[in-house]
Amino acid sequence: MLWRQGVGMRRLSEGVEAALHCALVLGALPEGKVISGKDLARMFGVSESYLLKHLRAMVSADVATAVPGPRGGFRLARPAGQVTMLDVVEAIDGKGPAFVCREIRQSGATSCGDPRAYPRDCLVKQRMMQAEDAWRQVLAAQTLADLAREAAPDIDPRDRAAIAAYVAWAQR
Amino acid sequence: MLWRQGVGMRRLSEGVEAALHCALVLGALPEGKVISGKDLARMFGVSESYLLKHLRAMVSADVATAVPGPRGGFRLARPAGQVTMLDVVEAIDGKGPAFVCREIRQSGATSCGDPRAYPRDCLVKQRMMQAEDAWRQVLAAQTLADLAREAAPDIDPRDRAAIAAYVAWAQR
Repeated sequence: MLWRQGVGMRRLSEGVEAALHCALVLGALPEGKVISGKDLARMFGVSESYLLKHLRAMVSADVATAVPGPRGGFRLARPAGQVTMLDVVEAIDGKGPAFVCREIRQSGATSCGDPRAYPRDCLVKQRMMQAEDAWRQVLAAQTLADLAREAAPDIDPRDRAAIAAYVAWAQR
Repeated sequence: MLWRQGVGMRRLSEGVEAALHCALVLGALPEGKVISGKDLARMFGVSESYLLKHLRAMVSADVATAVPGPRGGFRLARPAGQVTMLDVVEAIDGKGPAFVCREIRQSGATSCGDPRAYPRDCLVKQRMMQAEDAWRQVLAAQTLADLAREAAPDIDPRDRAAIAAYVAWAQR
């Protein structure tokens, strides 16, 4: 698979892209309406089981709500202006740090072995966390409503019409 | 293993921590001196083969230089003030993006299927790349020399003495 090139690189779960696109569709539904996982999957050309896994992760993270039953489906848990890109990304990918600190400074021949000698986080870890905070801030500054508004002019008129028709047909 | 909790999270290679600590030691060597992978491994309490993999990645990325022979070892490829944290992290983890864009916008029922309809990157991808740039900028702004200088006051005097003695003994 092409996207697996460069093994060892840091990688977000590849479900993040699908989740963000789904969240944008959910954000475009009229209030009270839902869309099924099956219809979202067809819209994006992915398998329903694959997408349901990510939709359920969004429900667990309180980003989306699942309405059960034969006429059920998914909607956002709150208005699109109150869901950030970071909310969606962390729903799929977790909130944990990308940098793995195993306290190497305490584990070798030059460590005194006294835990009290390390009252603060290692500066390496501090800087890595600062970088991750910068990443998070960009995604936290952008809501789904912002994204939809900014993306609109770039969407080809044919796709825009198809998306509107599809969502009007699939919503329930 | 504890650090594997939260499977599915984005993760940097756990070699990044060891590589950064090694790079700091290399940056502290007097000009022209090297230290062996074996001595670095003992210093950090990790296996030599594990560390050599990462040291070789740093050599491939022109961050470190390997001096061959029985009295050989590793040194930085340039002064510590000219090697950034990003150089070291990307040596281990690659330069590829964390976000995986599979052009989902072009793959489903609402895409017109005309590649000319997508002249620009998807806004989702643009924003994700912007977040990664912010992460990169923090790490590119910090050299190994900066890191060593800022970390110094936080290192316990016992460890500082042990590190200095070890490096003085191991360098060659």
